[in-house]
Amino acid sequence: MIIQLSSTINNFQKDSIVKKVSEFGYKVSEVKTQKGTYLISIGKKEFDIRQLGFLSGIEDIHRVSDDYKLVSGKWKVDRSVVDLGDGVFIGGNSLAIMAGPCSIETEAQVELTINHLKENGVQIMRGGVFKPRSSPYAFRGLGVEGLKMWHKKAREAGIKIISEVMQVSQIADMYDYVDVFQVGARNTQNFNLLDELGKVDKPVMIKRGISGTIEELLYSAEYVFSAGNEKLILCERGIRTYERASRNTMDVNAIPILKEKTHLPVVADPSHGIGIREFVEPIALAALMAGADGIIYETHQKPEEAYSDGQQTLDFNESARLIRKLLKAYELRETAF
Amino acid sequence: MIIQLSSTINNFQKDSIVKKVSEFGYKVSEVKTQKGTYLISIGKKEFDIRQLGFLSGIEDIHRVSDDYKLVSGKWKVDRSVVDLGDGVFIGGNSLAIMAGPCSIETEAQVELTINHLKENGVQIMRGGVFKPRSSPYAFRGLGVEGLKMWHKKAREAGIKIISEVMQVSQIADMYDYVDVFQVGARNTQNFNLLDELGKVDKPVMIKRGISGTIEELLYSAEYVFSAGNEKLILCERGIRTYERASRNTMDVNAIPILKEKTHLPVVADPSHGIGIREFVEPIALAALMAGADGIIYETHQKPEEAYSDGQQTLDFNESARLIRKLLKAYELRETAF
Amino acid sequence: MIIQLSSTINNFQKDSIVKKVSEFGYKVSEVKTQKGTYLISIGKKEFDIRQLGFLSGIEDIHRVSDDYKLVSGKWKVDRSVVDLGDGVFIGGNSLAIMAGPCSIETEAQVELTINHLKENGVQIMRGGVFKPRSSPYAFRGLGVEGLKMWHKKAREAGIKIISEVMQVSQIADMYDYVDVFQVGARNTQNFNLLDELGKVDKPVMIKRGISGTIEELLYSAEYVFSAGNEKLILCERGIRTYERASRNTMDVNAIPILKEKTHLPVVADPSHGIGIREFVEPIALAALMAGADGIIYETHQKPEEAYSDGQQTLDFNESARLIRKLLKAYELRETAF
Amino acid sequence: MIIQLSSTINNFQKDSIVKKVSEFGYKVSEVKTQKGTYLISIGKKEFDIRQLGFLSGIEDIHRVSDDYKLVSGKWKVDRSVVDLGDGVFIGGNSLAIMAGPCSIETEAQVELTINHLKENGVQIMRGGVFKPRSSPYAFRGLGVEGLKMWHKKAREAGIKIISEVMQVSQIADMYDYVDVFQVGARNTQNFNLLDELGKVDKPVMIKRGISGTIEELLYSAEYVFSAGNEKLILCERGIRTYERASRNTMDVNAIPILKEKTHLPVVADPSHGIGIREFVEPIALAALMAGADGIIYETHQKPEEAYSDGQQTLDFNESARLIRKLLKAYELRETAF
Repeated sequence: MIIQLSSTINNFQKDSIVKKVSEFGYKVSEVKTQKGTYLISIGKKEFDIRQLGFLSGIEDIHRVSDDYKLVSGKWKVDRSVVDLGDGVFIGGNSLAIMAGPCSIETEAQVELTINHLKENGVQIMRGGVFKPRSSPYAFRGLGVEGLKMWHKKAREAGIKIISEVMQVSQIADMYDYVDVFQVGARNTQNFNLLDELGKVDKPVMIKRGISGTIEELLYSAEYVFSAGNEKLILCERGIRTYERASRNTMDVNAIPILKEKTHLPVVADPSHGIGIREFVEPIALAALMAGADGIIYETHQKPEEAYSDGQQTLDFNESARLIRKLLKAYELRETAF
Repeated sequence: MIIQLSSTINNFQKDSIVKKVSEFGYKVSEVKTQKGTYLISIGKKEFDIRQLGFLSGIEDIHRVSDDYKLVSGKWKVDRSVVDLGDGVFIGGNSLAIMAGPCSIETEAQVELTINHLKENGVQIMRGGVFKPRSSPYAFRGLGVEGLKMWHKKAREAGIKIISEVMQVSQIADMYDYVDVFQVGARNTQNFNLLDELGKVDKPVMIKRGISGTIEELLYSAEYVFSAGNEKLILCERGIRTYERASRNTMDVNAIPILKEKTHLPVVADPSHGIGIREFVEPIALAALMAGADGIIYETHQKPEEAYSDGQQTLDFNESARLIRKLLKAYELRETAF
Repeated sequence: MIIQLSSTINNFQKDSIVKKVSEFGYKVSEVKTQKGTYLISIGKKEFDIRQLGFLSGIEDIHRVSDDYKLVSGKWKVDRSVVDLGDGVFIGGNSLAIMAGPCSIETEAQVELTINHLKENGVQIMRGGVFKPRSSPYAFRGLGVEGLKMWHKKAREAGIKIISEVMQVSQIADMYDYVDVFQVGARNTQNFNLLDELGKVDKPVMIKRGISGTIEELLYSAEYVFSAGNEKLILCERGIRTYERASRNTMDVNAIPILKEKTHLPVVADPSHGIGIREFVEPIALAALMAGADGIIYETHQKPEEAYSDGQQTLDFNESARLIRKLLKAYELRETAF
Repeated sequence: MIIQLSSTINNFQKDSIVKKVSEFGYKVSEVKTQKGTYLISIGKKEFDIRQLGFLSGIEDIHRVSDDYKLVSGKWKVDRSVVDLGDGVFIGGNSLAIMAGPCSIETEAQVELTINHLKENGVQIMRGGVFKPRSSPYAFRGLGVEGLKMWHKKAREAGIKIISEVMQVSQIADMYDYVDVFQVGARNTQNFNLLDELGKVDKPVMIKRGISGTIEELLYSAEYVFSAGNEKLILCERGIRTYERASRNTMDVNAIPILKEKTHLPVVADPSHGIGIREFVEPIALAALMAGADGIIYETHQKPEEAYSDGQQTLDFNESARLIRKLLKAYELRETAF
């Protein structure tokens, strides 16, 4: 059960509510986010919700039978839209396209990418400065200095930045230079990281775990939300299966299922979802038709020379064509059907 | 290596070719299909293909490095189109839509379904008369008598029939009453069944195994082709993974990968691919945008009362809406991009 | 619910029972096996079992909540033991060891293998004469002629034979020459084959499907049992997962779980379970300690020259050492703990 | 290539080696651990190793073709043994048994567990004070205060402690109170955590990821080793598959494979491996026979009342019986075969 508190509630009123709910045998957690205050009440006994309704300070009460509560689609009438500022949104009535290299490599690369994005009307650039790598001997990214360089150029161009945060100590280092924190597939259940991101007032995009379930992804989002941050985006990026003909198996099913289970925006990453450059386009279009609110993919001026993930990275011509097709398919999905 | 023989070749010429190829250390299998005769030559030694080219009776020679040969996309310039007669095709320049109930149940049901299909311009009806069921105590289908009843009504209406064949002895029983034999996901590696279907002059659609790889599906098709039947269609229907929020995981990646690896038409089954009625539509559209040549799905006048698979079956309103959207999306994919 | 009928029941008595059970809203199937006659009654309504107990002709009544009934461990007090004749058993108070090549290849090979088995006290020889192969161009076995040759030598030596049957038509061909029919991992859900094997009075060993669930394996056994054949053995042989360091993932968990869920004997195949020759021994010992009633593995006089599966086949020295260790470990498990 | 440096090497000598190796086109990383200094050299060109051998300051040179180097079994003649002090070891010529509750709950529980372990000769106690939980509303452990309480009692009893560390900041907090840091299955690829644990002089046990490959586990160990800490143990704890009859699928294959690929000790966790209390014993014995150097499992005075994982936790009677059987089976494995 989620009890939304009125913004004018006083402590005495709140205590009365907590006391009453506890009397029904429910455990109560208070959650304060950027947008409101909630009492999450977990218990098993049935009782008549009207026994609470007369108390002062309550804005609304929602029964939510899911084990995740705040991210559940069962209580929120409107789908959440994440505002990145300057008229850039993820979710709602537009398609969010996020593109850029796997790794931030050089100033020249950043400039070329930004020009490509601006020419094609893309407002959000992806790129890694901290790279999780299986082998300790591989390139691990340019770090915060690379991020600062990138941020400077992106700000000048009016481009928003999404970049992966790998550990708690990086949150503060990155805070001033990113518009969206990305939680990678290896950190979907790094609960300490999620807790800390819940205390931050910046959007967070959580990628599904390498073999994470849809339910686990929702729980991970619940961690961030219940720690205070409502600005959440979920990302399907393919799962690990027995099939070896593709890097991962894009779970296109997850898109309509997530859209029904949660009010949060859902984006798809076809680059990791299939892992094969020539097939990123059809998989991106498939994810879009399945209902995705946005697409995030990898592009580079010379994929063959990329420091990482070159085999799944589009060149700028392929990227421009994909953007054009995405917009047409989005228009069909939203208006012409 | 595939050696396509000329239609006017004589035995003496053929023997000369086989002898020559054997001298290079290659094992030769002769394959005779409805459309031609091929010598499949398997070996490791490299040799100059021109050493064969001068022999009489050869139409064309193709190097094919894949372990499956005849179904490989590497040797055939044009994609295969399967002709069902009366202007009905799977593959080529049209979208093949196949719809109908999981199980054929009653005459009334067949009539209602045929009417629904005709109203919406669908030319191929699916339905099972032999049902593979996990439990021996479950409904196993109406059998051949049901098929005859269905066939009579379908012929009158000009509708083609696709239906599952479960064992060798059913091939002869069904032959006169189906337009496409379907090999189900539990029989993808029933090699005896595939061998026998290779001797038949009717199209065969092979579904991917419950946890079959893309490569295994291609090998299964190679069985049918090498036994003499070129009229083949492949079907992606979801694979078994750890995820429990859907019945199967629709492997949308398999569609562009198969379209590149083979010249055969590729269709998708969103009903089994996700297994949840309300999400069949977005998954069907996703599969289409990924490149499918056709969509096969389950529909029933009252899904709640279907003998089997009701939870993933569309009613006729939902089906009509899906058909409309599929045609619009297909038009976008083929022309408007 | 399983109603075991008395061996002296008459038709009038049986009809009365069926009528009574049907009145409770239950669907009744009669099952006649080598050992008895059962009425399998499936329904949802609760009723007092004593309302049946007074009827004549009933030996025993068992409530079985599992969806599979006859193979369930819930109704049979004693574990089943499969008798191969001449004092050879699978299940019960001995360890069944079954060894031999993947494929029967030559007379010399059969003789060498039989000698090896006799020297080491092994009574059951495995070997394939019909080989399911992914590629149609691979060796598919010696067929029935090979089986007859093998059978002649095995009979002379007092060795029992287990061999795979791939399709219905082979049952009659093989009947006189095998002691146990093996259903392979690609045929676990070939329901027609299972039905027909239920009509045969010879033991059947069913391998778990390539990615079959434990429950599906039990249902497949229910097919054979409910068609009339109680002489059943189940075999765990590894499942398909994402891990690529081994051919399959030996699901050692399945052994104690199956032993609890069913009264049938459970054997393990470590050769396919890991697929790596040097590790067959530890996996065989692991499966034994997990509770297996028997071990089936591949051995060949020269594994490097085997027609198939050489990479997972033991030579005779390795095989002799494994047998010695299995017997010691079995003794520890049964007596010394 | 791993170049082990002599303990008396001087900087001038080291620079000469690095220079020489770099000239061959190899990238060199210096690794200093508790036990020695290594130059890890990664490159592709072949050269005669004797061209290095004459240089001063080299103890030994090993070619290692695996991508992980320091943990590879290809260069180290002797298997590693991890010394916990006071005559307690993991690896080598003894079986390491580690037992205790999922979560540390109360002083009484700790005392009862310690008594149970001492009575049965177990020297290492497991228990969690930081609990990774899918849901943010679940019990997350007693934290450092709980660890201190536990540590005090364990020290008095002469019992060693293994406990999970979830994030970098906890390393310093836990350092004085644990004998082995455990990295949980959700953190196997938390590369920052691994890096930091490489700087610590305490043993680290890394659990395989929830769906991690064997190779990824070895890479994760390489992270810790290459950051300076050789005191490493690997743990197989079951993987995520499609099978739902058990919590995880115990990958018993991984044990002999790991034992061959690495010189590090390998232990098994049957509690998580199957997740069903009554089957923990057979799976523990199976893992032992597959070659495990140790077994870690969950036990609690009243499993039904445990704060977490009660369904897979042994009571003390079951635990005592398991220990007795493990020791007998270990004796058989090591001496009587």
